[in-house]
Amino acid sequence: MIRFACDYGEGAAAAVLALLERTNLEQTPGYGEDAYCAAAAQRIRALCRAPRADVHFFVGATQANLTVIAAALRPWQGVLCAESGHINVHEVGAVEAAGHKCLPLPQKDGKLTAAQVAEAAAAWRGSDSREHEVQPGMVYLSNPTEYGTLYTKAELTALHAVCRQNGLYLFLDGARLACALASPANDLTLPDYAALCDAFYLGGTKCGALFGEALVLTNEALRPGFRSVLKQRGGMLAKGRLLGLQFLALLGEGDVPLRDTPYYLLAQKADAQAARIAAALAARGIACTFGAATNQLFFSLPGDVYTAISRDFALTRMGPEQGGLVPVRLCTSWATRDEDIDALLAAL
Amino acid sequence: MIRFACDYGEGAAAAVLALLERTNLEQTPGYGEDAYCAAAAQRIRALCRAPRADVHFFVGATQANLTVIAAALRPWQGVLCAESGHINVHEVGAVEAAGHKCLPLPQKDGKLTAAQVAEAAAAWRGSDSREHEVQPGMVYLSNPTEYGTLYTKAELTALHAVCRQNGLYLFLDGARLACALASPANDLTLPDYAALCDAFYLGGTKCGALFGEALVLTNEALRPGFRSVLKQRGGMLAKGRLLGLQFLALLGEGDVPLRDTPYYLLAQKADAQAARIAAALAARGIACTFGAATNQLFFSLPGDVYTAISRDFALTRMGPEQGGLVPVRLCTSWATRDEDIDALLAAL
Amino acid sequence: MIRFACDYGEGAAAAVLALLERTNLEQTPGYGEDAYCAAAAQRIRALCRAPRADVHFFVGATQANLTVIAAALRPWQGVLCAESGHINVHEVGAVEAAGHKCLPLPQKDGKLTAAQVAEAAAAWRGSDSREHEVQPGMVYLSNPTEYGTLYTKAELTALHAVCRQNGLYLFLDGARLACALASPANDLTLPDYAALCDAFYLGGTKCGALFGEALVLTNEALRPGFRSVLKQRGGMLAKGRLLGLQFLALLGEGDVPLRDTPYYLLAQKADAQAARIAAALAARGIACTFGAATNQLFFSLPGDVYTAISRDFALTRMGPEQGGLVPVRLCTSWATRDEDIDALLAAL
Amino acid sequence: MIRFACDYGEGAAAAVLALLERTNLEQTPGYGEDAYCAAAAQRIRALCRAPRADVHFFVGATQANLTVIAAALRPWQGVLCAESGHINVHEVGAVEAAGHKCLPLPQKDGKLTAAQVAEAAAAWRGSDSREHEVQPGMVYLSNPTEYGTLYTKAELTALHAVCRQNGLYLFLDGARLACALASPANDLTLPDYAALCDAFYLGGTKCGALFGEALVLTNEALRPGFRSVLKQRGGMLAKGRLLGLQFLALLGEGDVPLRDTPYYLLAQKADAQAARIAAALAARGIACTFGAATNQLFFSLPGDVYTAISRDFALTRMGPEQGGLVPVRLCTSWATRDEDIDALLAAL
Repeated sequence: MIRFACDYGEGAAAAVLALLERTNLEQTPGYGEDAYCAAAAQRIRALCRAPRADVHFFVGATQANLTVIAAALRPWQGVLCAESGHINVHEVGAVEAAGHKCLPLPQKDGKLTAAQVAEAAAAWRGSDSREHEVQPGMVYLSNPTEYGTLYTKAELTALHAVCRQNGLYLFLDGARLACALASPANDLTLPDYAALCDAFYLGGTKCGALFGEALVLTNEALRPGFRSVLKQRGGMLAKGRLLGLQFLALLGEGDVPLRDTPYYLLAQKADAQAARIAAALAARGIACTFGAATNQLFFSLPGDVYTAISRDFALTRMGPEQGGLVPVRLCTSWATRDEDIDALLAAL
Repeated sequence: MIRFACDYGEGAAAAVLALLERTNLEQTPGYGEDAYCAAAAQRIRALCRAPRADVHFFVGATQANLTVIAAALRPWQGVLCAESGHINVHEVGAVEAAGHKCLPLPQKDGKLTAAQVAEAAAAWRGSDSREHEVQPGMVYLSNPTEYGTLYTKAELTALHAVCRQNGLYLFLDGARLACALASPANDLTLPDYAALCDAFYLGGTKCGALFGEALVLTNEALRPGFRSVLKQRGGMLAKGRLLGLQFLALLGEGDVPLRDTPYYLLAQKADAQAARIAAALAARGIACTFGAATNQLFFSLPGDVYTAISRDFALTRMGPEQGGLVPVRLCTSWATRDEDIDALLAAL
Repeated sequence: MIRFACDYGEGAAAAVLALLERTNLEQTPGYGEDAYCAAAAQRIRALCRAPRADVHFFVGATQANLTVIAAALRPWQGVLCAESGHINVHEVGAVEAAGHKCLPLPQKDGKLTAAQVAEAAAAWRGSDSREHEVQPGMVYLSNPTEYGTLYTKAELTALHAVCRQNGLYLFLDGARLACALASPANDLTLPDYAALCDAFYLGGTKCGALFGEALVLTNEALRPGFRSVLKQRGGMLAKGRLLGLQFLALLGEGDVPLRDTPYYLLAQKADAQAARIAAALAARGIACTFGAATNQLFFSLPGDVYTAISRDFALTRMGPEQGGLVPVRLCTSWATRDEDIDALLAAL
Repeated sequence: MIRFACDYGEGAAAAVLALLERTNLEQTPGYGEDAYCAAAAQRIRALCRAPRADVHFFVGATQANLTVIAAALRPWQGVLCAESGHINVHEVGAVEAAGHKCLPLPQKDGKLTAAQVAEAAAAWRGSDSREHEVQPGMVYLSNPTEYGTLYTKAELTALHAVCRQNGLYLFLDGARLACALASPANDLTLPDYAALCDAFYLGGTKCGALFGEALVLTNEALRPGFRSVLKQRGGMLAKGRLLGLQFLALLGEGDVPLRDTPYYLLAQKADAQAARIAAALAARGIACTFGAATNQLFFSLPGDVYTAISRDFALTRMGPEQGGLVPVRLCTSWATRDEDIDALLAAL
């Protein structure tokens, strides 16, 4: 079975394993209070040009999402998100289990617009019964989105502005941020994210780490108690250094520019493999619904083709067959091999 | 100011106050463990022909909604409801604060259909990632709906069937149930509700009581720990007898048929007053968007008319002025006076 | 059956019912946004000499406790309380259901000391693992305590000071505050409470109202979103005026001093009836464990006596029989009749 | 700095790293639905002689604790535990954040007795106000306890019996279970745990894994929705195989008896190192408060000694200096080196 079903099907990039191995018998304090986590946090602050930001490491993205939201919102507040947002659809109501309502808005290509946010904030503020309605307290985005599409710098800047005007935190889920950063279609840098978001994370799980997300908190209002919420929600790793080490391996040290780090290069590989597949699909008349900006492709296959290739290839079915076509998602990763792509294209 | 903004603008029906006064200095146990609550529960069971049902009294509807949902659902379950459902819109995320996600479905005239519920249940069951998605565990309806419309017996029977087939509790918010029961358009009886719903309540606040909702639990699976959840959520009234007494005053004792009880007659009055206004509006070319089956009317007024009458009459504005028209809601109640209607119609 | 089991066995003081009746058919806005609630709030601010305080009305004390705590604390914070505190023992974990831990401290006569609070705050602050421990965020007291005892002004002043020094809110449950205010042993005034507490309430349920607690928020940090939390937790009464009206009836208007209000006089009666019983018990050699400062008496009866009188008199058994003695609680109220006391004393 | 402060200061046993490396580029499904997790679960079932048990893997112990408790309890239930229990003290109220109250009982040597549990269950059942009190729904133990002591088979059997009689789940936190299994003082086997507990886990983080706890659910009532709660609480690892692989590396495959597995041998080493230190301390007249059955030692050092050695050795201070003595905890692990022990003993 060759797997294109997700981008977490393999282990870690070689540099990550090597660093874990090299440091394995060192003794460090637990819970992320070690020198490796400190160095990784420092490296991330430097890459983000955000010297005063707080950096916290999580094992996974659902954990990061629910912890940030639990720590940031007051009991009467909820989080605006795209209907397709991961927190709204694929986390078993983790936000609600923490007491907060997702406030879904219609999405286009997986994205929200500043106008939608402004309208939602104005609707609450202008409502005669707003004391009876959940107050929007945060905007949750993901970039790339659930559909692999990208926010532009202009879009994120507008979202930032509308959040500021309306007292909303802007929180960006970057589980696949590397694939955004490395995409030819991208115009947002890490310093941009740090300047425009109150909180965002650099996903490691889907870009070379065994696991790990590095959360950057730029808004000081989000600091108090944050590590306690992290612990309370089960997200504080005993051997916390494992997270710091992995990000050090991926992001390097010193003055290496992002483009030369494993983190960037691995994502660039993932994006390129997706682009190669998209081009081959296009040549066969199969269009990718949301383009091919990053490492996720969405398209449809005739039912019999889908059935036939499913014996040897894992894709993610995105819904029931309709009109003879099965909608699927295909993911590439830093580990996607050329020969596996060849085999897939040969089988289609 | 003459108020048509809601149906809880006055106090209680005379019979209610009289009974409270007559029993005022009696001594009873607290927390609803008194003889009046027992008698009221017995009376409700008799009216519902549900001799084994549990009856619990609440001060208000939000409290009833959140307590039933908190007691019924497991942590990974949510509640299907109309997008316009009160729990989804007007209770500050009370369901989410109790840890559960509202799963809103598009509504038509404030109603859900059995087909929608079946589809939502099937979608979850058929999803490859259903372990990551909130499981529908309950259907929440209100009757009358938020728009004053009514479910038919056929519709509720179909919803009951689909809930049974899919392991969903059926919970009906009856904050205005009296106005449904007394409507000429209604074909559902209290025994029907008891037979078709796992839980429903007879609203008192909006029909003659100072306050109070009488919850009927027909499904024995909902019993364990229920009173403890009621207490935990702050809903157990110290002088619980006040609730039993009010329902006794409204529903009477012995074999009086529902149609001859104050509860029914008060609601009939409210419905009739709304129908009278609707007819007068129709004569002026103003249509009620959702008809006039119960005591709520939804229509639009020219902006200047709305502004002019707002000095003397309270209506509920339902949104911003659009195309020169202001959408409003008008409520009647058991206490709505003929002369106030005359004055309103004269002013329009 | 003559009931001394609790102080909520009867209905309301005559003045309360009369005012409800007199205003019954008036129309007012709902949810506490009416003129009666405004007047009652104004009257309470005047009595407390706290012109800038917020006043919110609740139907019951559990509701008030959980709402204040949910609104005030951040997710990593808990509430210091006596082991015997109502929130820790008799509310089915309502505080925990809202996500916060009760941090119980040993009590003496139902009371906490400033030294205990200082020590608990210092222990957290000084702990090497404080990020892993719930941060004390509030102190919850009740006055009178669960055992009917009273804090002195010196004690409450010391608790206030230690709370300020340690960044803790001071919240005082005043479900029986009237019985404290009217006690001969009391030296705390309403302005004292307002000056020393961040939040406290004047209980109505146990002093002349059908139901109702009037919460005074003196700390502006507790204001944002408070009414939304009230709604979310099910505590916002539709016919909110019922609460304002009852407090107006109890507290009067204009410049009437507290000592001349029904609220005070009713409590004075309750306290005096308890004192009369305590004196009679003492004459028979039965000591009240916690004295007789307010309307609750705690003592023990021989098992056979307890059994014999239980046919005709309701007391609250406080635990299993031990050494031949049954511990009981006896409550008086504003409605306790002399002849019922005579009958009890005759039966003992 | 030589660290004896905790047993998670190093990375993983060599076998663990080797297996992660060997399988690194394999492709597997995510979220624990891979063949390695299946094999590890099967191996654990075999070792426990519990062929029908469910096995779930967690990254950490707080996550495991809160997920099991959230999944098992109903809203009105709490969890009996020792006052010193990890969930009660060191998880920032994670249980309360999930809506449930810890019901702490006094401990002796970190342990609860069957008699205490029986008494607590009887107290609730016998209370006249039990509807107002949190119902005990579970007993939480840890073995070894927080103080490194061990339950005997007789004690655990008695606890099991009293739990069955009272409808309580028995949940055992085995973060350090390996050190219990390998202790000369131990008489409990894995099949014993499986027979006596409704849920327990084999800790990996503190015995050779990078991270990981393997939860065994023997009670089928705990199965429904469990994986969804795991996801909702943020505990479902994307690359779930990392957990299965580590337990395979530690527990081996086929018919290897537990005593010959790395898991056992690593723990045996940790226990032996602690025993060696305890013996040396005893020779100097320093007694270990709770004995030396497993890998944690608790003793006191003169303040000046503590200060002096703290430059080079990390211990955990367990409280403030009292009477010139500083209470400390010392942990050994599978990685504790003889020369580090020698250095410590030389420094003392």
